Amino acid sequence: MTSASAGADGDADAAATIEPSLGPVLVVGAGLIGASVAMALSRAAVPAFIRDVDAAVAHVASSRGAGSDGPIAGTPSLVVVATPPDQLGAEIARALADFPTAVVTDVGSVKTKPLEYLQSGGIDLSRYVGGHPMAGSERSGPLAAAADLFDGRTWAVVDREDCDPAAVHRVVRLVRACGAVVVRMTTRDHDQAVARVSHLPHVVAALTAGRLVEAPGDHLSLSGQGLRDVTRVAAGDPGLWCQIVAANADAVGALLHELRAEIDAMIGSLEARDVPAVEQLLRAGAAGVSAIPGKHGGPSLALATVTVAIPDEPGALARLFADAAEANVNVEDLRIDHDPARRSGLVELDVADDRAEWLTAQLQARHWTAHR
Amino acid sequence: MTSASAGADGDADAAATIEPSLGPVLVVGAGLIGASVAMALSRAAVPAFIRDVDAAVAHVASSRGAGSDGPIAGTPSLVVVATPPDQLGAEIARALADFPTAVVTDVGSVKTKPLEYLQSGGIDLSRYVGGHPMAGSERSGPLAAAADLFDGRTWAVVDREDCDPAAVHRVVRLVRACGAVVVRMTTRDHDQAVARVSHLPHVVAALTAGRLVEAPGDHLSLSGQGLRDVTRVAAGDPGLWCQIVAANADAVGALLHELRAEIDAMIGSLEARDVPAVEQLLRAGAAGVSAIPGKHGGPSLALATVTVAIPDEPGALARLFADAAEANVNVEDLRIDHDPARRSGLVELDVADDRAEWLTAQLQARHWTAHR
Repeated sequence: MTSASAGADGDADAAATIEPSLGPVLVVGAGLIGASVAMALSRAAVPAFIRDVDAAVAHVASSRGAGSDGPIAGTPSLVVVATPPDQLGAEIARALADFPTAVVTDVGSVKTKPLEYLQSGGIDLSRYVGGHPMAGSERSGPLAAAADLFDGRTWAVVDREDCDPAAVHRVVRLVRACGAVVVRMTTRDHDQAVARVSHLPHVVAALTAGRLVEAPGDHLSLSGQGLRDVTRVAAGDPGLWCQIVAANADAVGALLHELRAEIDAMIGSLEARDVPAVEQLLRAGAAGVSAIPGKHGGPSLALATVTVAIPDEPGALARLFADAAEANVNVEDLRIDHDPARRSGLVELDVADDRAEWLTAQLQARHWTAHR
Repeated sequence: MTSASAGADGDADAAATIEPSLGPVLVVGAGLIGASVAMALSRAAVPAFIRDVDAAVAHVASSRGAGSDGPIAGTPSLVVVATPPDQLGAEIARALADFPTAVVTDVGSVKTKPLEYLQSGGIDLSRYVGGHPMAGSERSGPLAAAADLFDGRTWAVVDREDCDPAAVHRVVRLVRACGAVVVRMTTRDHDQAVARVSHLPHVVAALTAGRLVEAPGDHLSLSGQGLRDVTRVAAGDPGLWCQIVAANADAVGALLHELRAEIDAMIGSLEARDVPAVEQLLRAGAAGVSAIPGKHGGPSLALATVTVAIPDEPGALARLFADAAEANVNVEDLRIDHDPARRSGLVELDVADDRAEWLTAQLQARHWTAHR
């Protein structure tokens, strides 16, 4: 519990539940997510065991605190399948067969496809409850794993009418033991939700970024923070993401059809020089941004941006934040926008609208170049 | 110069050029950009005068340090047209007629359309040189203006074969006086470049965000940082952006046609369950992200992300950055990802790959929950 208790910084809610009675738990797949689950369980005093198709990978994970890769002591009460998306169905089926009293869950990004595979096998699925932690990293493998990867993150628990309620409850306990926040959803809702809030944006970012490859001459020298934000996620592993998107092909495809119709509407409006129609499409986008839940799920806070010039060296941000803290202003979000031509940068601090003027004045009094 | 010299934090390069001999400069349009230009010029000791179709707006700008809204002392050497996109052509023509010895530039986001308007008038354009500072804000109007808005930002100087070289030189001096970095481009290259790095990403972000409006039920509860990044720019003023996009309709339209073809390819690949084709499209996106110039224009630094749990209160970021600074690690970029369910958050620090392990250990030793 050392790590969880430190991370909460005095906030007891953030600590993962201590759950020794939940185990033994077997984690199948010792990549980033699987190894992190085993480490989080170990942190919560749950006896955890880990396996991988590559025994050496499981051994590395185990040596980093991701449970034991030795023989399982007792019968697992829970099996967590954390394999690549393409293998989920087969591995879940195998776990149900190998451990006839265990609850089985998984951590896959897509739920319908493996479920269809399982249903086609005609087996009893009452002990299988889907799961999907909304956490990850651009790194992969057990060396990137961490016991606190899921702390405070959302973790979808995807149950069905044919799930044993006791099995659902055991998966909820797993999620809480890992420090995450449960969001319950149906299979169909989950896959449609992630298609909209994750897979479609990923595909769109990738296709937009793809337009940069052929950019002539020095056109990219005009790149700014907006372009970097829109395209950032497209740097994620294409090998993993193509499995995810392909496994959710129907939901993603339906949204891509919608998006193509919107692009057609934009093309038509631009060709017709129909500016009100262009504006209407852009207004819908602004409305969509404000539909994203506010921080902490509460009503969106009216924010203003304070821009500060900083030298690009260790300590500059520390001084800036120390000065912002002395002004007693909470920084809600921030962006760093480096100057491509020399070693200095701009930091944009998002603060409550009614605090921006005060913060700007306080920073200026402390010799920062700051403006709203 | 107080603001510029403070902002540079000892970096003399970042200071704007002192240019008293450049003036008098007349700025037409007292919105965010126009007022900021006049403030930056005043900072550089250039005599500046400001006008607006609404005299009260010009007066507000003037009262905030954006030059004088009174009678022009002497003959302007330079007129900066900073009106909304739709009025640029007419206002540039008027400035050329009203001030027959002045160089005229503008700050518009699109260059071809106003130029076509001017060329259709059959007037001598040797004194007109286009300009486009790559700076802005989600706020607008003279109250949002700042003398240092352009410090360290790129400012495209868009010259043509029929430009008087002395006129180009005067605009370059203007840019430097405002603290910005000159990038010279042709009219066509500029409009194609901004279509690709700014207008297309904006439209794509808006259309993707538009898909969120109709999201059923609690689907948006799975929203994460990726979605926020992809859609952030779509919150910008639709009224302004529709003028910008419409004024660059041909270049944006051509890229939207390309994007639609890519979306068709993605839809087809998903329907055919052709995973290698999906992967190839995603790989092109990853290549596009890495084509964006690295910070400081140098080769891209290999970065790793260190994730840290923080309480959401004043001072937490200050303590974090003080500790990072004590570890002597430079934070290249960062994101704050709040937990929607309670008042705590995660900060992702991007640092040089070979410093991430060290920083993680140092932060953990200082009782942060930190992991790579």
